[in-house]
Amino acid sequence: MKDLKLFIVSDSIGETGELVARAALAQFNIDSTEHYVERISHIATKEDIDKFISSIQDENIAVLYTFVAPELSKYIASKLDELKIPYVDIISPIIDMISQSVDEAPLEEPGRVHQLDSDYFKKIDAIEFAVRYDDGKDPSGLKHADIVLIGVSRTSKTPLSQFLAYRGYKVVNIALVPEVNLPVELFEIDSTKCIGLKIDSDVLFKIRKQRLQQLGLFENATYGQNERIVEELEYFEDTIEKIGCRTINVTNKAIEETASEIIRIMNL
Amino acid sequence: MKDLKLFIVSDSIGETGELVARAALAQFNIDSTEHYVERISHIATKEDIDKFISSIQDENIAVLYTFVAPELSKYIASKLDELKIPYVDIISPIIDMISQSVDEAPLEEPGRVHQLDSDYFKKIDAIEFAVRYDDGKDPSGLKHADIVLIGVSRTSKTPLSQFLAYRGYKVVNIALVPEVNLPVELFEIDSTKCIGLKIDSDVLFKIRKQRLQQLGLFENATYGQNERIVEELEYFEDTIEKIGCRTINVTNKAIEETASEIIRIMNL
Repeated sequence: MKDLKLFIVSDSIGETGELVARAALAQFNIDSTEHYVERISHIATKEDIDKFISSIQDENIAVLYTFVAPELSKYIASKLDELKIPYVDIISPIIDMISQSVDEAPLEEPGRVHQLDSDYFKKIDAIEFAVRYDDGKDPSGLKHADIVLIGVSRTSKTPLSQFLAYRGYKVVNIALVPEVNLPVELFEIDSTKCIGLKIDSDVLFKIRKQRLQQLGLFENATYGQNERIVEELEYFEDTIEKIGCRTINVTNKAIEETASEIIRIMNL
Repeated sequence: MKDLKLFIVSDSIGETGELVARAALAQFNIDSTEHYVERISHIATKEDIDKFISSIQDENIAVLYTFVAPELSKYIASKLDELKIPYVDIISPIIDMISQSVDEAPLEEPGRVHQLDSDYFKKIDAIEFAVRYDDGKDPSGLKHADIVLIGVSRTSKTPLSQFLAYRGYKVVNIALVPEVNLPVELFEIDSTKCIGLKIDSDVLFKIRKQRLQQLGLFENATYGQNERIVEELEYFEDTIEKIGCRTINVTNKAIEETASEIIRIMNL
């Protein structure tokens, strides 16, 4: 396989372009020594494009670009054509399609996706909320939450809360430990806001064993023992029944996937 | 403006498609009553596509799709052509370009971008790390951090830590309060890992005023007073000088933007 240098050229920070690039790169068995992704941000003029073009070396190069101004898209395409460098225009075809569908001209303002609007502040508030109420530290968050995640240790409660917060939802997560009393608020709130994170015991056993090794702790700590895991999962089932809420199986599932499924089954 | 219904059809969860759609939609003055974005996930066969096609109603519709299998991309395109529904294929042009550039066939496995590989676990670890060491709760995180953010209250330390964690960096954030002693570890670690979050006092004044209103607290609380803010910002400048680290101005900047800039100036 040939080494590849992939440039993301953008009139804003190039975040959308990089996400699309990573999704496409994931379809190849390329390891990190064989490719290199570089963002070229805040390219605002033809001169900026010229500077970028003259900086690229004689390597195996490909370019993805996102410009909201059509003249910059056309200009970089013509320059890359001259040099026979392959490229894909990520955003123009979609902006054109929407423009025709809604019968209105696009605004052509770079970085509008990062504008400080109400959606943005909602997301930021949700991220702060999920950090503040992580691990059931303060049950007062329960009544303000959109989603309450309930699970034993190592069922990805914390990262899942953050992924959901990114989508604008206020999340509280509650760690289930048989010896620790649950907050009374958990049984008072609307149970449709709650969701239990199920996990297969053998997978949880492996995850906890790894976790103990990572922390440099004894492998025979109670936390990693099979009987303890079975006990905790039984306690989980009892609690979920008491609350009367739905569950989702997180075993071997990517957190993005679980987050999407939660939003779907909760009809959010 | 015409109302628009935009479908994201994907062989995986459709996250990449939705992000691109949101970036394009941001270029129009459409409010949330005028458009509707729906993900159609896990479309794996031609029959799934037929089912989707027969479910769509006679409205103003546009489709974005991401299929890693070329025959599904071709199939949905032909169906949408028949119905004269506009569409954009997001991922195939990029996969084709990379395939030609690296001279290798793509794997055509849906959802590989969400695979549970080392990058994925690095990101998850970083998210948990940032939650655990948020707000300087435990200075023991400082020596393990890739980035240490330092700032007064309301300089977006918490969400910024999470955005950087999403990119795989371990972040500790330290809240500066003149009355609270800083952890000694902060002066022992490599100062190039540290970065101070600067903010203009008048903007901080407005943000804190809003914050107090949001919390239903008195507007004349010390926290929101101009003299207090000036005092805190002076303490910030003194501390940054003592540590000897760089700063970044976060005033009116989107957090994605600040995160990108930090990664750039720290050469990460």
